Amino acid sequence: MITRIGENTLRFARGPWVAGWASSVGRKEKEGPLGALFDQCHEDTMLGADSWEQAESRLQAEAASLALRKAGVEKESLDCVFAGDLLNQCAASVFGLRELGAPYLGQYGACSTMAQTIGAASVFVESGAARRALAVTSSHFCSAERQFRLPLEYGGQRTPTAQWTATAAGAVVLSAEPPAGAASAVSVREVSFGRMVDLGVKDAANMGAAMAPAACRTLLGYFADTGLSPRDFGLILTGDLGAVGSDLLRGLLLREGCDISAVHNDGGLMLYDRKRQDVHAGGSGCGCSAAVLCSAVLGDLAAGRLGDVLFVGTGALMSLTTSQQGETIPGVAHLVRLGARSVPQG
Amino acid sequence: MITRIGENTLRFARGPWVAGWASSVGRKEKEGPLGALFDQCHEDTMLGADSWEQAESRLQAEAASLALRKAGVEKESLDCVFAGDLLNQCAASVFGLRELGAPYLGQYGACSTMAQTIGAASVFVESGAARRALAVTSSHFCSAERQFRLPLEYGGQRTPTAQWTATAAGAVVLSAEPPAGAASAVSVREVSFGRMVDLGVKDAANMGAAMAPAACRTLLGYFADTGLSPRDFGLILTGDLGAVGSDLLRGLLLREGCDISAVHNDGGLMLYDRKRQDVHAGGSGCGCSAAVLCSAVLGDLAAGRLGDVLFVGTGALMSLTTSQQGETIPGVAHLVRLGARSVPQG
Repeated sequence: MITRIGENTLRFARGPWVAGWASSVGRKEKEGPLGALFDQCHEDTMLGADSWEQAESRLQAEAASLALRKAGVEKESLDCVFAGDLLNQCAASVFGLRELGAPYLGQYGACSTMAQTIGAASVFVESGAARRALAVTSSHFCSAERQFRLPLEYGGQRTPTAQWTATAAGAVVLSAEPPAGAASAVSVREVSFGRMVDLGVKDAANMGAAMAPAACRTLLGYFADTGLSPRDFGLILTGDLGAVGSDLLRGLLLREGCDISAVHNDGGLMLYDRKRQDVHAGGSGCGCSAAVLCSAVLGDLAAGRLGDVLFVGTGALMSLTTSQQGETIPGVAHLVRLGARSVPQG
Repeated sequence: MITRIGENTLRFARGPWVAGWASSVGRKEKEGPLGALFDQCHEDTMLGADSWEQAESRLQAEAASLALRKAGVEKESLDCVFAGDLLNQCAASVFGLRELGAPYLGQYGACSTMAQTIGAASVFVESGAARRALAVTSSHFCSAERQFRLPLEYGGQRTPTAQWTATAAGAVVLSAEPPAGAASAVSVREVSFGRMVDLGVKDAANMGAAMAPAACRTLLGYFADTGLSPRDFGLILTGDLGAVGSDLLRGLLLREGCDISAVHNDGGLMLYDRKRQDVHAGGSGCGCSAAVLCSAVLGDLAAGRLGDVLFVGTGALMSLTTSQQGETIPGVAHLVRLGARSVPQG
């Protein structure tokens, strides 16, 4: 059962179970601090495909297939798939998931896509519209660079506020049934879908600044709706604000009397070692927060090493065309609360 | 309450009410057979904006705003918006709906987007995740041509199988509450989200052929799930298969013993007069079936002039990049059953 709490938070009485999750990443992501936690790492950025776009599709197909296998769910028993990515017309998802054969609802939330797909899939599972649903997303450094910025061969300089698009995919299987044989498991407890916030940032090399106000609004709304505060959580994981956006978010919240610093981290800061790896303000791309969630975070939650997590996916809703036409960059942030709880026995 | 019927159909016990709908179109659409039925028509393809992309955003903003006004729903009371379009990163929706201020879930289903957004919004409303939701989409001939095909100034020749992207937007407001004071109203009764079907069509100038097999699969699945047949409906509205895809769909279904010819029509065939208006195989674009639905079809349903309608939105899930890389074109078709029913009184 779904109950609306306050202005904009959905609370799930049962809570869809996270039956399985998986991540698939490239070499640079493997060399980062979370390298040992990913399900699959690729030395070859092309994954043996003929183009970067096809490689990204393979990343997504792999993450989906691994998550299904870990969940013990056959693809034939999926009632729906929620997926999206940064490529024009969300092509990485289409061609990565075409073989799955499941009812397909393409989503577009830019880098907030992992939170949006989990949130939407959760509503479907909790309401009985689906018994099992898949949420999946990806990004690829090379396909994103050439689509949004410059040919890679050009070797363009990047500004200090720029973020590095992760070559990564993450997938989560949600189920109405708890995992068999487990004493406890992770479930989705609440969701708060975000509104667009646009404070006029136009710099496409500073997405963190464009997205931070949306994350601030979603978090403040959630705390107001639920009466909870940052100390009620083991981790508030934004993704992907990077260094610039994370600082801005913490500052914006502090001005409203909300201090998240003790429990906040950001997917864009967790995926890479900024001292050792040349990623400027941190990681970004749909696959960045997805891969962080679908490795370290869900692993820690499932193992009981982490209290409830607020996963706040953040997206910059621009395109190359709108930026070239002088438009500002609206941000959006979707919030998903994940927590381990006992599985009813018998 | 949502009940799963058969393999892949969702049945709504209450059924979200269609509280309002609206369409906004360009000059060519106004000159077509449905011209008198649209809420707003624009002589100026630019709508006074600085670019075609901005013009498309204005079309979408206008359709949304008119639908809300006709429904008597304030934008502040919308619990969520489901929207998408053909532009890269779904930019027409983002910039058209930014001012709405409602929780925003971007969708991508190519030309099936109107059915996908209505379907997803219906699940949210029926489950209590939203009390009022908006489903909206658009397309614009000029923004689509230059993004997917050729510069307009080039005056490229079009093949006979090509379809004409409609300059149009449509919006539907769904509500858990029936319209006040009405004896009967239209509600969403069933939804069947489609699977991708790819029979290997590569010709981006023949989208009808790429999408027809998906429409066939979704319709056959729906009839199998429900035990219903074409004669149970006043209209089966596909959109947008055009002349080529419509012929293929009827032929594919006939091979399976399913004859829809007595009740079938297609948004791409209804929007323009193919003898008088030079649109080759018919109309297309997210806005085409959306505008047909949000004018003639919903109007006839509400007035009791039409039995239940199966609205089968069809999408060709390709991008310029995937076509240039030699990929085939997966199709998808989402089905929404709409029907008038008595409003419970008192």
